[in-house]
Amino acid sequence: MTLLGERTTTAAADDLEAAAVAVFPVGSTEQHGPALPLGMDHMAAEAFAHTATDREDAVVLPTLPVGVSEHHRQFDGTLYVGPETFEEYVRETVSSLAAQGVRKVVVVNGHGGNSGALRRAARRLREERTAFAPPWNWWDAVDELADELFDEDGGHADAAESSLLWHLREDLVRPDALEAAEAGASEGWGESVHGAVLGFDTIDFSESGAVGRPTQADPEKGRQLFETGRDRLHALLDWLAERPLEACWPRDGR
Amino acid sequence: MTLLGERTTTAAADDLEAAAVAVFPVGSTEQHGPALPLGMDHMAAEAFAHTATDREDAVVLPTLPVGVSEHHRQFDGTLYVGPETFEEYVRETVSSLAAQGVRKVVVVNGHGGNSGALRRAARRLREERTAFAPPWNWWDAVDELADELFDEDGGHADAAESSLLWHLREDLVRPDALEAAEAGASEGWGESVHGAVLGFDTIDFSESGAVGRPTQADPEKGRQLFETGRDRLHALLDWLAERPLEACWPRDGR
Amino acid sequence: MTLLGERTTTAAADDLEAAAVAVFPVGSTEQHGPALPLGMDHMAAEAFAHTATDREDAVVLPTLPVGVSEHHRQFDGTLYVGPETFEEYVRETVSSLAAQGVRKVVVVNGHGGNSGALRRAARRLREERTAFAPPWNWWDAVDELADELFDEDGGHADAAESSLLWHLREDLVRPDALEAAEAGASEGWGESVHGAVLGFDTIDFSESGAVGRPTQADPEKGRQLFETGRDRLHALLDWLAERPLEACWPRDGR
Amino acid sequence: MTLLGERTTTAAADDLEAAAVAVFPVGSTEQHGPALPLGMDHMAAEAFAHTATDREDAVVLPTLPVGVSEHHRQFDGTLYVGPETFEEYVRETVSSLAAQGVRKVVVVNGHGGNSGALRRAARRLREERTAFAPPWNWWDAVDELADELFDEDGGHADAAESSLLWHLREDLVRPDALEAAEAGASEGWGESVHGAVLGFDTIDFSESGAVGRPTQADPEKGRQLFETGRDRLHALLDWLAERPLEACWPRDGR
Amino acid sequence: MTLLGERTTTAAADDLEAAAVAVFPVGSTEQHGPALPLGMDHMAAEAFAHTATDREDAVVLPTLPVGVSEHHRQFDGTLYVGPETFEEYVRETVSSLAAQGVRKVVVVNGHGGNSGALRRAARRLREERTAFAPPWNWWDAVDELADELFDEDGGHADAAESSLLWHLREDLVRPDALEAAEAGASEGWGESVHGAVLGFDTIDFSESGAVGRPTQADPEKGRQLFETGRDRLHALLDWLAERPLEACWPRDGR
Amino acid sequence: MTLLGERTTTAAADDLEAAAVAVFPVGSTEQHGPALPLGMDHMAAEAFAHTATDREDAVVLPTLPVGVSEHHRQFDGTLYVGPETFEEYVRETVSSLAAQGVRKVVVVNGHGGNSGALRRAARRLREERTAFAPPWNWWDAVDELADELFDEDGGHADAAESSLLWHLREDLVRPDALEAAEAGASEGWGESVHGAVLGFDTIDFSESGAVGRPTQADPEKGRQLFETGRDRLHALLDWLAERPLEACWPRDGR
Repeated sequence: MTLLGERTTTAAADDLEAAAVAVFPVGSTEQHGPALPLGMDHMAAEAFAHTATDREDAVVLPTLPVGVSEHHRQFDGTLYVGPETFEEYVRETVSSLAAQGVRKVVVVNGHGGNSGALRRAARRLREERTAFAPPWNWWDAVDELADELFDEDGGHADAAESSLLWHLREDLVRPDALEAAEAGASEGWGESVHGAVLGFDTIDFSESGAVGRPTQADPEKGRQLFETGRDRLHALLDWLAERPLEACWPRDGR
Repeated sequence: MTLLGERTTTAAADDLEAAAVAVFPVGSTEQHGPALPLGMDHMAAEAFAHTATDREDAVVLPTLPVGVSEHHRQFDGTLYVGPETFEEYVRETVSSLAAQGVRKVVVVNGHGGNSGALRRAARRLREERTAFAPPWNWWDAVDELADELFDEDGGHADAAESSLLWHLREDLVRPDALEAAEAGASEGWGESVHGAVLGFDTIDFSESGAVGRPTQADPEKGRQLFETGRDRLHALLDWLAERPLEACWPRDGR
Repeated sequence: MTLLGERTTTAAADDLEAAAVAVFPVGSTEQHGPALPLGMDHMAAEAFAHTATDREDAVVLPTLPVGVSEHHRQFDGTLYVGPETFEEYVRETVSSLAAQGVRKVVVVNGHGGNSGALRRAARRLREERTAFAPPWNWWDAVDELADELFDEDGGHADAAESSLLWHLREDLVRPDALEAAEAGASEGWGESVHGAVLGFDTIDFSESGAVGRPTQADPEKGRQLFETGRDRLHALLDWLAERPLEACWPRDGR
Repeated sequence: MTLLGERTTTAAADDLEAAAVAVFPVGSTEQHGPALPLGMDHMAAEAFAHTATDREDAVVLPTLPVGVSEHHRQFDGTLYVGPETFEEYVRETVSSLAAQGVRKVVVVNGHGGNSGALRRAARRLREERTAFAPPWNWWDAVDELADELFDEDGGHADAAESSLLWHLREDLVRPDALEAAEAGASEGWGESVHGAVLGFDTIDFSESGAVGRPTQADPEKGRQLFETGRDRLHALLDWLAERPLEACWPRDGR
Repeated sequence: MTLLGERTTTAAADDLEAAAVAVFPVGSTEQHGPALPLGMDHMAAEAFAHTATDREDAVVLPTLPVGVSEHHRQFDGTLYVGPETFEEYVRETVSSLAAQGVRKVVVVNGHGGNSGALRRAARRLREERTAFAPPWNWWDAVDELADELFDEDGGHADAAESSLLWHLREDLVRPDALEAAEAGASEGWGESVHGAVLGFDTIDFSESGAVGRPTQADPEKGRQLFETGRDRLHALLDWLAERPLEACWPRDGR
Repeated sequence: MTLLGERTTTAAADDLEAAAVAVFPVGSTEQHGPALPLGMDHMAAEAFAHTATDREDAVVLPTLPVGVSEHHRQFDGTLYVGPETFEEYVRETVSSLAAQGVRKVVVVNGHGGNSGALRRAARRLREERTAFAPPWNWWDAVDELADELFDEDGGHADAAESSLLWHLREDLVRPDALEAAEAGASEGWGESVHGAVLGFDTIDFSESGAVGRPTQADPEKGRQLFETGRDRLHALLDWLAERPLEACWPRDGR
């Protein structure tokens, strides 16, 4: 189906009747180093989610563009809300849809900082038996391919992200800045000191805002990432569409 | 400037330095009767807000697509969050921008149900001296013109809204359904009983979800509404850009 | 019946059994310019509400005297609580009554700043099917008569309010200060700048604290306002007493 | 001075300038057995508080009529709000006054169930150095006299309360029901079982709603209670008016 | 049974099946003058609670060591959480147990400052019919004996507390500091001024942090206190184990 | 120093003066399969934390025994509080200590489910410049050694945890149940379906409650884990004690 926001309520009545699942893209607007746009994460989530507009059994919600990014705030242009607010916004939006009968939702997530809040929202929606709304992080879905394609631990504005956006929105990537991104990047996320993870803000461990090796970015590899991720997302949607709602709820104790 | 989300953090550093004001479009995804898409309100807000991408002195934030629409929930496709959650999301997003030096923000609003929450957010941001972020409702800005163009009290999915979207997104309007919209519409918002306003949900007083006389809709009139609204928005941005920040804060008592 | 607070629990058992509706007066303690007392709004609400002590089918709750008046805080003597606190206080009080079987309540409101919170409280009580508790604003109920009697847009400490209190509590009105009130008054509420309503605090647009033309005040006109408002309130109570509780709850979707 | 609510903002400016202290009466609307009206506690608080209208150095706030009375809810006519809501309402009201320069407030309390919330509010206001607002419970102030006058442990709708109201509002007391009140009363508050206090609701331990020996009530003894309490309240106001604000704030650590 | 925390989930399945009641010790870590350790209150609660490990019908939860002690914060070593946080922590812990079938719980409390929060938690758990979880304060359970043994009003780090801990943990008591404790102690809790209780922090009325007459402390008297308290706790557990769950819930109204 | 709870306030004054850091052990009481006790996680945290009682520069707080374990609730004996409550309890406890001058704290954590809440608490304490309180998860500190010692991905009640507790509390481990633990265990945490992590509750993917290969457990390996972890914790404490407080606070933007 097409995007829910583009349908009239009359048409949506049919869409919702036919829908087995929904797709809700969420991301962030936050620094991604000197080579990638601030909207990287919501653009990625949206791109994956919008591939579901082809499906007869799915409705696609509008994109939530600002997320849990306080840890990037020292870099210009970063917007953010607190984890509780983000969690509530997502949870209530999903609840409002679930009340109309679509109670299986994949929250397509473009930003690692959102993960905790999305897990809590999903957990609570499931506990209440309102909806089953697991987050799907695109980078988790393509991690094996990314390991093959790139030599990095990565984590933020890295080769994988840069490649993906290069494929999706070539106009917004600045390849000439990838060197600078990498020069100021850290190897991995955070700063481990004797077993404690001490990097609370990105600026604690990365000068450019990037983490990983963005100079390895390549739009063709981005295409592969996108297509692999898309295929896995659709496999998930197929699986979820088939799954009985009853099987989604929490199990009883022993 | 272009959209903030499309800029790198490096470029945004310059943008924010140059910016006197910001523009934050917010709307809703909710029923607008049988002729208009669910995304009407965020599409309208976005269209007005994006006219500011031409300005050197403004940054334009991404669009918040789901708002305070619980009162439309009996109509299919309506999404919503509670007023507290919406207020917090807007307030925190504006705060995160204000911390980077842009403390005058126009919240371009497409949905009447958001107004109370936006006023509360603006009030609190001002009290704290974090930011001056008044909401700007496009329909308020064009009310005189709308009174000239249409014979309706209106309020929701009416001739004014239908005309505006017909102008902006002809592909998403279904002119053949305007008759049905009007046939099931109420004349005015709510249901007044001996001085009490009792219509808590739209369905309490409107069968089609519309309020007003949508059959008077006309894309040319929509163009006039858009251009008038746009001009007023830019006049507001000019005025606000000039206004010293100190003049924006609350006055002391007598 | 007489006031609930003046009845023993034993007598109240009978009252509640017999009651079809309840009346809950709420107001504020806030500046009303140099001619009217700070308690104007709760006095007005109480006066209307207490006319229901004559009815066999109504219980009358005690008056809540402090409301959502932060926007008047720069004027001496203004007391206020936040909108959430006011909403909760009203909602919980109504819930406690509803648990005893009286689930239709008219919240007689004397202060415009309370309206948003009262609407939210009423909406939530209705959603939960706890109670149907619409607010009734006296000025809305008499707006046609006020338009006939006075040449003003008004809004606060205006001719209508001044007249009403002059009728109700002549001892508390200072007619000699009406000139000063009007001299420092604004014509209408708030300050509209290119379509944005920017007056967040009364002091932003009114020097005296008044909005309207208080010099037109007249106790005889106040009597007319009071009697008209009273009659409309009783018509509402009649209507609500007759209305089946089931008809008060939210309708299901289409 | 007279009641704050009866003053204009202009007059209040002078009152607040002259005021060293404020008095804020709070109570409840809850069952007081078959002989006393539901408003007992707010009537008592108001009566004590209004004696301060004679003082040049005090402003008297309006009365908050509904309190923390959930434990009486099984008896008809009881209204209540939760302890958090009550605490916030009081705290915010006091804060709004304190912002105008009157930062020493006696909260004259008529209801034991409010005490915890009032202590928490006072503690927080003091911690923040917003205001010093200790609660004053009238029964604590007259406990020695009550012990002399009556042979009871008491606690609710007992001889002391009944006497006080008989003195204050003879029209609202039903002496013929005092026998029934006592017949169904418990000796003391709650129900102690092996050291645990298990009476969470009044109905757990009292059939009539009363606790104590109301048949000992006498209006002349009520007069003595009132006058003694009044004198102690004024001694407190004198003491507080003299006390430097700095001496009211928390001490530093050792 | 032994402590719940020392059991495997497999063994706990049997324990919970057999359990009629649970015991949850809660205390504080706060100043107790120069002679007693900061952990006095959680040590006392734990000692009483652990006597229930002998019972076949009881499970014993782990000890919550930090409580509502802000009023002691000016004395070194005092830790605390706010009353809402403490209430929630206790309430949620009890709820998690109740979901497994043990719905009668004695909260063995070692700290007076926790009492209000524990009452609120118990009240709410009972209202929801989740659990019946009354607090049991050891000093209330032994008050008659304490009155016999000591000549003090006491209240904090007094002869009773000092004796109890001397019996329980001789190694942690510093008898040579009891003189200093008493020299700087107040006679009773708080500071009553004309009927208002004004001591919000312990330092307001006690120089040493103690309240009472600690020099009367004696380990043998501590043994008597402990054994008497223990016996009363077990009597309570016997009584509660026998009590049908239905008898624990709130009664309906008249 | 010894445990804070065992010190008088007088002695604590010296301790706090001398202390450069504090150690706060937190864990959970939750199922750990058929071979390990429910208190595994708080016992482990306490054991590591108590090694710091030897240090002159550290104070050791009491152990918080119940954590964020809702996802284990289907297994008997599991206790839990919500993530917000846990976060607040930890944050407020640390704040109360920080107010006394010890503003660098290592939160020694025994339970993975606590991690998100501890990160949020630490982030907020740091943002406010109240304290620098990073969590230290013992399993992260020993992950390299654990990889050498065991052939498992592990995660819960696995060989590493079982070995550690076997070393620390042999009396509480049931080696004969390790087979059953492993037979019902999952290989890794959660259940990944096409890139989405769907295991919200442990019971969704593990029959015994264990995750990993507990039969590899060995007390000697437990000793190695403990000593390695202890050494890393002390290295962290050394590092943190040396680190200037100013270096702990968030960096400013670029």
